[in-house]
Amino acid sequence: MPATPFSPSSFFILQPRFNSYLHPLFRSLSSSSPLSLNAVNNFSTFALHSSLSPPSDTDSPSSATGPGARSGALSPGPAPSSGVVQKIDVNPPKGTRDFPPEDMRLRNWLFNNFREVSRLYGFEEVDFPVLENEALFTRKAGEEIKDQLYCFEDQGKRRVALRPELTPSLARLVIQKGKSVSLPLKWFTVGQCWRYERMTRGRRREHYQWNMDIIGVPGVMAEAELIASIVTLFKRIGITESDVGFKVSSRKVLQGVLKCYSIPENLFGRVCVIIDKIEKIPIDEIKKELKVAGVSEEAVQELLQVLSIKSLAELEERLGSHGEAVADLKQLFLLAEKFGYSKWLQFDASVVRGLAYYTGIVFEGFDRERKLRAICGGGRYDHLFSTFGADDIAACGFGFGDAVIVELLKEKGLIPELSLQIDNIVCALDEDLQAAAAMVASLLREKGQNVDLVLENKPLKWVFKRAARTNAQRLVLVGSSEWQRGMVGVKILSTGEQYTVKLDDLK
Amino acid sequence: MPATPFSPSSFFILQPRFNSYLHPLFRSLSSSSPLSLNAVNNFSTFALHSSLSPPSDTDSPSSATGPGARSGALSPGPAPSSGVVQKIDVNPPKGTRDFPPEDMRLRNWLFNNFREVSRLYGFEEVDFPVLENEALFTRKAGEEIKDQLYCFEDQGKRRVALRPELTPSLARLVIQKGKSVSLPLKWFTVGQCWRYERMTRGRRREHYQWNMDIIGVPGVMAEAELIASIVTLFKRIGITESDVGFKVSSRKVLQGVLKCYSIPENLFGRVCVIIDKIEKIPIDEIKKELKVAGVSEEAVQELLQVLSIKSLAELEERLGSHGEAVADLKQLFLLAEKFGYSKWLQFDASVVRGLAYYTGIVFEGFDRERKLRAICGGGRYDHLFSTFGADDIAACGFGFGDAVIVELLKEKGLIPELSLQIDNIVCALDEDLQAAAAMVASLLREKGQNVDLVLENKPLKWVFKRAARTNAQRLVLVGSSEWQRGMVGVKILSTGEQYTVKLDDLK
Repeated sequence: MPATPFSPSSFFILQPRFNSYLHPLFRSLSSSSPLSLNAVNNFSTFALHSSLSPPSDTDSPSSATGPGARSGALSPGPAPSSGVVQKIDVNPPKGTRDFPPEDMRLRNWLFNNFREVSRLYGFEEVDFPVLENEALFTRKAGEEIKDQLYCFEDQGKRRVALRPELTPSLARLVIQKGKSVSLPLKWFTVGQCWRYERMTRGRRREHYQWNMDIIGVPGVMAEAELIASIVTLFKRIGITESDVGFKVSSRKVLQGVLKCYSIPENLFGRVCVIIDKIEKIPIDEIKKELKVAGVSEEAVQELLQVLSIKSLAELEERLGSHGEAVADLKQLFLLAEKFGYSKWLQFDASVVRGLAYYTGIVFEGFDRERKLRAICGGGRYDHLFSTFGADDIAACGFGFGDAVIVELLKEKGLIPELSLQIDNIVCALDEDLQAAAAMVASLLREKGQNVDLVLENKPLKWVFKRAARTNAQRLVLVGSSEWQRGMVGVKILSTGEQYTVKLDDLK
Repeated sequence: MPATPFSPSSFFILQPRFNSYLHPLFRSLSSSSPLSLNAVNNFSTFALHSSLSPPSDTDSPSSATGPGARSGALSPGPAPSSGVVQKIDVNPPKGTRDFPPEDMRLRNWLFNNFREVSRLYGFEEVDFPVLENEALFTRKAGEEIKDQLYCFEDQGKRRVALRPELTPSLARLVIQKGKSVSLPLKWFTVGQCWRYERMTRGRRREHYQWNMDIIGVPGVMAEAELIASIVTLFKRIGITESDVGFKVSSRKVLQGVLKCYSIPENLFGRVCVIIDKIEKIPIDEIKKELKVAGVSEEAVQELLQVLSIKSLAELEERLGSHGEAVADLKQLFLLAEKFGYSKWLQFDASVVRGLAYYTGIVFEGFDRERKLRAICGGGRYDHLFSTFGADDIAACGFGFGDAVIVELLKEKGLIPELSLQIDNIVCALDEDLQAAAAMVASLLREKGQNVDLVLENKPLKWVFKRAARTNAQRLVLVGSSEWQRGMVGVKILSTGEQYTVKLDDLK
């Protein structure tokens, strides 16, 4: 190494200029390294809390701080002291989040895991506009999602909506691409979705959703692959089969029952949407809604009995082994064994999912302590395309939100410590040397090192505090006498080692 | 290497089962490798075009394909043949984009460059909701941006807007954080912004913007650091100082002129917004608007003369060397030299930028052939915080969109070749072996390799075509007789090398 190592004492003898700046600080720091650890820990604890706390409920409608309360043009002079400027609402709109650095690190960590898993499975990333034509989402199957649309008329008199989910946009793009793409498509997205919900259960109005979809594969291998990818994600972030499981069923089970009672096929989506609410609203409510939808009392009884089945053997006994539902499910459990995740799966006929368009296998990830809402959910939607006026293509996919998983990671103490990592903090010891410090920063950045350049003339005490807060590995000091000899001072902050080094040799 | 290399002939003798599948294909493929290169090239050419073509202008308002045209619940049976389902509009809303895989690769490449540069400079990533309280953006300085808000009333009767820019949200978050954060903050964001513009110049209604902001540094070192980071970005993506430059000025130049003519300070933002349009609308229009705003004819003449100054020496001559404007600009040019990017900078008094809140140095990146709109722009906004009712904090930042830079890269032939890169395509030779193939895929993925698992029983010809399209490095074939001996067949697709290998030794 071309650097000149030196002991603290020789340093102070050789570098009188440095000495006056460094003396008290280098001394006290080398005896109490790592620096201000508490401050750092508090910072990341704060990050954790702020990312997990429910959204503030105290914000008021914007009218309270509306345009009328603002000053006009932005004056270049100091703030008017007459007090006419009312403070804006500093919170984001109700039900939405800011991502300050500590929360953004967690989000990036999670999203990177989503992306890396998707790529391991050979999926390609896609995205769509967060603002879509409203018609894409206005299915008439009584879904909750439709009543919760953030929709409006734009200046061109078009009905538009913030997307509540990603699948309709994906289907739209697949239809648009037509024959220019080769099936199967394996696509994933990480995108923000919006729902205007009453803020009763600490639910937010926006969340990010990781979707993976396979377009063009009719067989259960596709569903098996999707669940495998979610299992891979869980394992990567430290979640095990004792923390979570998947409840699996097939909508073909219900379809069979409805067929027996001659219930029209076009009622199917609506019936599934009603049944999905079975754990959320009283059973009498469910029965009433089913009756209103046109399902006879007899059929309702049969449906509810079938929905209570919790084993595949019992299902087979009831429905016979020749139906598609049983065959699909048996195949899926066989594949799960080969993929190595059969312990994560359990059959549960009550799983139907709340979206109208599922047609076959449906699944949802749940925490085994049953404290949280579903972590993720998905299934086969072989007939979505025809409802958009295109030819049907076999398809399945899942959505995995960014909210419940973070709750679960918190429950399990699995939120990672993610702190800012700065390689170098570079500081001029003299206002005149700031441009020189900028040169040093440029040099290091060209070598791929990140640099927090101190942009003002600050006391070294301040610089050390900042270095501690940013977890800087190394302090590079540009002092006048060293600079004249083409050198800078370096302190390795973890060990306290310090030396001067020629600029050319600074690595 | 524990694998068993073999020549094609010995392979076919030893592996009769494989033989029947592989014979014609392996033969023809080894003689014409790489496979179907044209298909691959067409794919990426397509990606390029589709990412660069102006948005479709043919989409109709959603009423044409509105909810009424849809089928109701999603039927689980085949698409109704009665023809009642009208095809949806397959385009995203006018002025917005989908990101199919080829475009998403380009977006990810660009955004990764934004992020890596920001991190080299020690900046931390933040984000805010894409939907904000409208009051955040309704400044009364006559800015274009205000008339182009995508705003509406939500179900809770709050006025909200899709953000047209990121800076007001950043300021809001800084105010909210208050004393819990230590200055200076160095924050960056890559986020989508929305403007409802007439679609005349091929402009879109959404774009992504990279912002970097420094909060809490009053000196010009901050601006110098920001411009340095943009230069670093340009260099990384292959753009040189002969392709682009930065025009730099200070709003304090105009402020000085206005002061001379006793024009009230609160007119400053509005005057800047008008002057920013100087290259877009006729000069008489500008003069008229300035007069309406309350600027005397004499002052207008002086303003226009000062704006025509193109050298710092001339500016100094006119304004004297003691004003802040000249001092700031001289300091910035000095720093640019030390940072090593002075050739990228030029003084140009006509640069004022279109946002009302800038107060000091302003700059914009432009292509030297003057074919395109500004690539990026930014400046100092030391008084934004007080217009939000908070104490002022020295601040500066820039916005860098994802549209013009891609146009420029295209002009210069610098769009990178970004193709899907699959490590392994894994395929069962037999429907019964699909679960085995799934096992093999799991094994490889656990080793960090990505796998495109063939999810159906497909002819090998199809598999090879897919492998070519996905640039798969290696084909792993699971055949019955090999599988019984715990082995799989491997073909390195670039060289044609093929061998069988024990599952345990598959790396």
